[in-house]
Amino acid sequence: MTPSSLDSTFSALADPTRRAILARLALGEASVLELAEPFAMSQPAISKHLKVLERAGLISRGRDAQRRPRRLEAAPLAQATDWLEGYRRFWEGTYQRLDAVLGELKALETGMGARSGGKKRRRRGR
Amino acid sequence: MTPSSLDSTFSALADPTRRAILARLALGEASVLELAEPFAMSQPAISKHLKVLERAGLISRGRDAQRRPRRLEAAPLAQATDWLEGYRRFWEGTYQRLDAVLGELKALETGMGARSGGKKRRRRGR
Repeated sequence: MTPSSLDSTFSALADPTRRAILARLALGEASVLELAEPFAMSQPAISKHLKVLERAGLISRGRDAQRRPRRLEAAPLAQATDWLEGYRRFWEGTYQRLDAVLGELKALETGMGARSGGKKRRRRGR
Repeated sequence: MTPSSLDSTFSALADPTRRAILARLALGEASVLELAEPFAMSQPAISKHLKVLERAGLISRGRDAQRRPRRLEAAPLAQATDWLEGYRRFWEGTYQRLDAVLGELKALETGMGARSGGKKRRRRGR
């Protein structure tokens, strides 16, 4: 996985129309005409987006020379996910820290409740 | 999660320096000076990248007014991963199809081996 492939993948994904095209192609291959239909976009406009996706290796062309259907290629998406997965431990760490903070706040609240007489059970335990 | 937040997240991730800054910040917060050091880049050049990351919500500023350390914010990375996770079934489908094809090829190869007398066990079983 070269840095430049991640560059072109993330760059290609940074557009809602291109993400919608990928979502459509995840259901099966489609011609440019079929892809242009739901977007109320001109065929040249769609073709421009398709070129970006093709350069990023996110789509390829099927064998039918007449329809030239586009097909989703999963590999760049898998590479992008791999990169993001490297940060999963960080989010989980963040959640754990958040849990710790929430736990401390709760303990503090309970302690305050005990001081003001609101938590009888804790008092009984002392 | 709005489409525009995915736009800015993916756009911010489409650069090797910005991804390296995030990798550094995953280890802990750092000042602009500390971030600029390993990249052999001018501070203004780094600041420009930091602005892109900040606008995308991928980093924030710590409380120390003097150092203004930058901190990684995991939420946009989690959102981007969520989007990509939507395609996991597609890759797995691809792998499953590939497995099926490989299985068929193997069966064909075994069958051919049996026909040419190469697989005695299969013959005995008949």
